[in-house]
Amino acid sequence: MTDLDTLHLRSALALAEQAVGLSDPNPRVGCVLTNAAGTAVLGQGHTQAAGQAHAEVMALRDAAQRGSDLRGATAYVTLEPCAHHGRTPPCCDALVAAGLARVVVALGDPNPAVNGQGVARLQAAGMQVQWASEDIAQAARELNIGFISRMERGRPWVRAKVACSLDGRTALAGGQSQWITGPEARADGHAWRKRAGAVLSGVGTVLADDPRLDVRLVATHLQPQRVIVDARLDTPPSANLFSSGAAPLMVAAQPHPERVAALQACGAEVLCLPDRQGRVDLAALLAELAQRGINELHVEAGAGLNGGLAQAQLVDEWLIYMAAMLMGPGRALAELPALGDLGQAQRWRFHEITPVGPDLRLRLRGL
Amino acid sequence: MTDLDTLHLRSALALAEQAVGLSDPNPRVGCVLTNAAGTAVLGQGHTQAAGQAHAEVMALRDAAQRGSDLRGATAYVTLEPCAHHGRTPPCCDALVAAGLARVVVALGDPNPAVNGQGVARLQAAGMQVQWASEDIAQAARELNIGFISRMERGRPWVRAKVACSLDGRTALAGGQSQWITGPEARADGHAWRKRAGAVLSGVGTVLADDPRLDVRLVATHLQPQRVIVDARLDTPPSANLFSSGAAPLMVAAQPHPERVAALQACGAEVLCLPDRQGRVDLAALLAELAQRGINELHVEAGAGLNGGLAQAQLVDEWLIYMAAMLMGPGRALAELPALGDLGQAQRWRFHEITPVGPDLRLRLRGL
Repeated sequence: MTDLDTLHLRSALALAEQAVGLSDPNPRVGCVLTNAAGTAVLGQGHTQAAGQAHAEVMALRDAAQRGSDLRGATAYVTLEPCAHHGRTPPCCDALVAAGLARVVVALGDPNPAVNGQGVARLQAAGMQVQWASEDIAQAARELNIGFISRMERGRPWVRAKVACSLDGRTALAGGQSQWITGPEARADGHAWRKRAGAVLSGVGTVLADDPRLDVRLVATHLQPQRVIVDARLDTPPSANLFSSGAAPLMVAAQPHPERVAALQACGAEVLCLPDRQGRVDLAALLAELAQRGINELHVEAGAGLNGGLAQAQLVDEWLIYMAAMLMGPGRALAELPALGDLGQAQRWRFHEITPVGPDLRLRLRGL
Repeated sequence: MTDLDTLHLRSALALAEQAVGLSDPNPRVGCVLTNAAGTAVLGQGHTQAAGQAHAEVMALRDAAQRGSDLRGATAYVTLEPCAHHGRTPPCCDALVAAGLARVVVALGDPNPAVNGQGVARLQAAGMQVQWASEDIAQAARELNIGFISRMERGRPWVRAKVACSLDGRTALAGGQSQWITGPEARADGHAWRKRAGAVLSGVGTVLADDPRLDVRLVATHLQPQRVIVDARLDTPPSANLFSSGAAPLMVAAQPHPERVAALQACGAEVLCLPDRQGRVDLAALLAELAQRGINELHVEAGAGLNGGLAQAQLVDEWLIYMAAMLMGPGRALAELPALGDLGQAQRWRFHEITPVGPDLRLRLRGL
């Protein structure tokens, strides 16, 4: 990797970032085309909405519009070009047809069944293929952490967001939670919602706060699917969820048929996923959401659902906005069983620590 | 202020830092003597133990040992030189007698009754006096935040240390708290203990953990006085507190005379400071500790005492070591009344955020 290679790969990553809130369920990919020396950018692009052009094709179109001659050129891509016919033709073929000589790839296709096939197809066509350095690969991985999770594990990347006080309270005992954190943290929270294919919450939060759970404080092309865990379908048809945006997916366990009918009449889809204890089977729900193309799942729920997910080891990342406030008695971050020994506590690691306005954003991941 | 002035003032601050754990109850002061051009250091020193030499005298002695000619020289001091006879003669007079021409002062004497007198005395003797820039003054203030608090407010700077989980727990419901944070955080906690003239805890912590509350994990010249709030003197004579170091100060409210006698027999001093409700009067205790020369008070207590101090608005700074762990039900950081409205919550601001090993150190101060 030369410095110019790194430069163009970083540009490609920045382009890929623009596919956030646009390309789901497809991965966020960026592509930069340069002359052989890497001294001139000939075209660039990123993944469009599902069913529309991929990053490579966008970059080729951009180059065509500029009248660039791509023979002998280099393509920098943040993800291995696809080798299969999906809703669009294979990107590999388009790169070969354009006469490029070299492709620099940040990351292999996360689908283990596909990984390497794109590269093999390019090499078979006589193109030189190079892999990016590990820091670039890592940035490409972060950008598509949800897509990778869905491909590799068959479930979305689950990011649980909470806003809490220093003493770990997410609401007063009476339920008041507006507002613990400041406007900067709330806007930042919407930027994370935007990254997600779906926002998951629970009936407790719906009944307490009557939220819309959509992306409002930042601009987006796509609104995430709203998904509500509501074992008995206690959500009232008057909830704000039903009066804004696409109808939510209601996930029940043992609903009364009348309740199912009432919510379906509001346009909601009702999914029944009981586990053996008659609660909603959260692992099955995640598998179902992956089937539906959800890459990142943004959980914005109360202690009950947070605790359920945490106990089932289904939280991949905590996104905690911590306010410099002491609240005293109130709602917990997650409902967890009382431990007999500290060795049993759920341990994480701080992945990122960033001040956001007067608050602190903590991101934690598994050890 | 020239760059050389700033350089020598920063050296003086670094010297002053070496008086931590040594000079209490006297302030931490550093002094650098240079030639008039500021191109040669002629002597340096910092405050010694109480009753021994101040920074200026140490620097003059150092210069004498080096055979330096101080006529026309400059002194950089982190605190206004004293103008009064305490246990040592006034430093002002020593600087004048040495023939110095100029003194650069980071910070005025925090004692409002004294502030400016040192400078006036130097000027009256024909010396040029300059004040440092605000960033240097701020660093000098931080270093003596406790001394300043004692002088200006008649109470120590109260720093409440807690180690807790992400969900604000300081111990499991059964009391287990060893260890929530890692060895790096524990050593860092001892470095903060070392800054304090006294460590304050409560009988609950003594009964639960039987701590020594001394400085062990970092080197120190002085051990802080241990002070235990124990309204009825329930601390047993067998407590580790009595078998290590200087005897602790036990602060009671309504103790049985037999209990007083029993703890006095262990060497403890017993102080009785009841408030009108028959609990220990925490404000009176802080006033008493200031009288005794305690500059920084390091609180290492449980939810009861932390909550009592917080409710009485007596906490100046929270020192929170947060582990990336979820504990579920357990002990709170501070016992506080249930709030009816979020507007009543105690709000702070993040003063400093630093990773310490795998944990996070948060320091918070008042808005």
